[in-house]
Amino acid sequence: MLNGAERARLTVVLVGARNPSNIGAAARAMHDFGFSDLRVVNEYGASFEAAQLEAKSAVAASTVMENARLFASVAEAVADCHVVVGTTAIGEREMRQVVEPLRVTAPKMTAALQGGDGRVALLFGSEKTGLTNEQLSHCNLLTTIPMYQPECARHLSMNLGQSVAVCLYELAREGFEGARALPVKHEAAATGEDRERLTQLLLDAMHAVGYTRRYPQNASETLVRQLAQQLGGSHREAMTWMGFLRQVLWRERGEGK
Amino acid sequence: MLNGAERARLTVVLVGARNPSNIGAAARAMHDFGFSDLRVVNEYGASFEAAQLEAKSAVAASTVMENARLFASVAEAVADCHVVVGTTAIGEREMRQVVEPLRVTAPKMTAALQGGDGRVALLFGSEKTGLTNEQLSHCNLLTTIPMYQPECARHLSMNLGQSVAVCLYELAREGFEGARALPVKHEAAATGEDRERLTQLLLDAMHAVGYTRRYPQNASETLVRQLAQQLGGSHREAMTWMGFLRQVLWRERGEGK
Repeated sequence: MLNGAERARLTVVLVGARNPSNIGAAARAMHDFGFSDLRVVNEYGASFEAAQLEAKSAVAASTVMENARLFASVAEAVADCHVVVGTTAIGEREMRQVVEPLRVTAPKMTAALQGGDGRVALLFGSEKTGLTNEQLSHCNLLTTIPMYQPECARHLSMNLGQSVAVCLYELAREGFEGARALPVKHEAAATGEDRERLTQLLLDAMHAVGYTRRYPQNASETLVRQLAQQLGGSHREAMTWMGFLRQVLWRERGEGK
Repeated sequence: MLNGAERARLTVVLVGARNPSNIGAAARAMHDFGFSDLRVVNEYGASFEAAQLEAKSAVAASTVMENARLFASVAEAVADCHVVVGTTAIGEREMRQVVEPLRVTAPKMTAALQGGDGRVALLFGSEKTGLTNEQLSHCNLLTTIPMYQPECARHLSMNLGQSVAVCLYELAREGFEGARALPVKHEAAATGEDRERLTQLLLDAMHAVGYTRRYPQNASETLVRQLAQQLGGSHREAMTWMGFLRQVLWRERGEGK
């Protein structure tokens, strides 16, 4: 699990992203998973500036976008990074470097982030081409998100914002320090006594409505006890069932009619 | 690892999604991870129909959107499903059901998909509210994507397309049957002989350019051998270095001048 200082040492680099909405979507995913350092490599700053404008209206992305920086080259964007990880869908090209699945690369990134003061960069390519071989040559590690590849598909690519979300999820998968505890069952479990009272009430009710007479083979005490086991994991639920069965009995005995 | 028949038994249900682009983004994520059964629950069909229109221009999403179906209620959408999993960011409300992190729920879903003919539904709520308590009451399991929650944040929510991508990634994380093998180093590793020749060439070159005279403390054979260990993990890379060093020597000896 990464702590705040460790998460702060992760840098997301979007190389050549064209669509401002995709830059904003990446910023939002970073915000969701507690990362903050976004760098955009783009010859022209237009899409970066448009993303900054758009983000002003999107609360989740705005703090990340406000602090995002524009670089003219990959080399400049990763100059202060000790580990540089490139993402790739591989595609049709011949790869010159080893590519690992994300679940294998993520623990290495976590170890690097936890190992010291080093900065770790995670690079994503443009929507159209992904990272080129030249861009990948700046990377120490290459990683890929396992995608389903039907026979006919030549070109695989994931949406940029979704790729960023999936990669950051893998880094954050174990959760966060100080995260609110998830809801668990607080209710007291039903006791053996609850279940036995439920069994007897169910037998009585089956008898009262004539079920026992019509289907005696289904209404033995043993079978009904097994049925009662399935009702009400909690004491409260068992009480609800008992209340209902008592009501059935009450009606049958003509007291509510 | 889920096979094709098992993936076909997963149903993604978008409940009350308003933005056609988000429905399309969910369809695209499904396509990327090899899932196909999309159902949309919406009182009004407008956003569903708009998503179907939009998808015609998006290759990746189109097959999923073409076969998507519209339902009027959650109950109808999950009527044929044996396991129903709800996603929730929890938020401020009091939860009445147990919520597990995604990495805990996903193996249960995988087991259910692999266990027989049962269909497993995975529900996502609307962009604005997520799944309501009423909608969650249709679910056997509740799951959440761990998100970073700063002290000040009251309202957490992830982008719908990104949530779908992250959940399906977790199901597909181990990869796909028949997936193309990832690139590994095919090249022959450098041998001890390569490294020793490299060491000697590097020593010669350091001597030839005068480095040994200026920095004798850095140029002992032992230190230079350690340097040479770092050059060229593969035979081909070692050969490249040797070629370069021979060229340095050739120039220094005046043969290329």
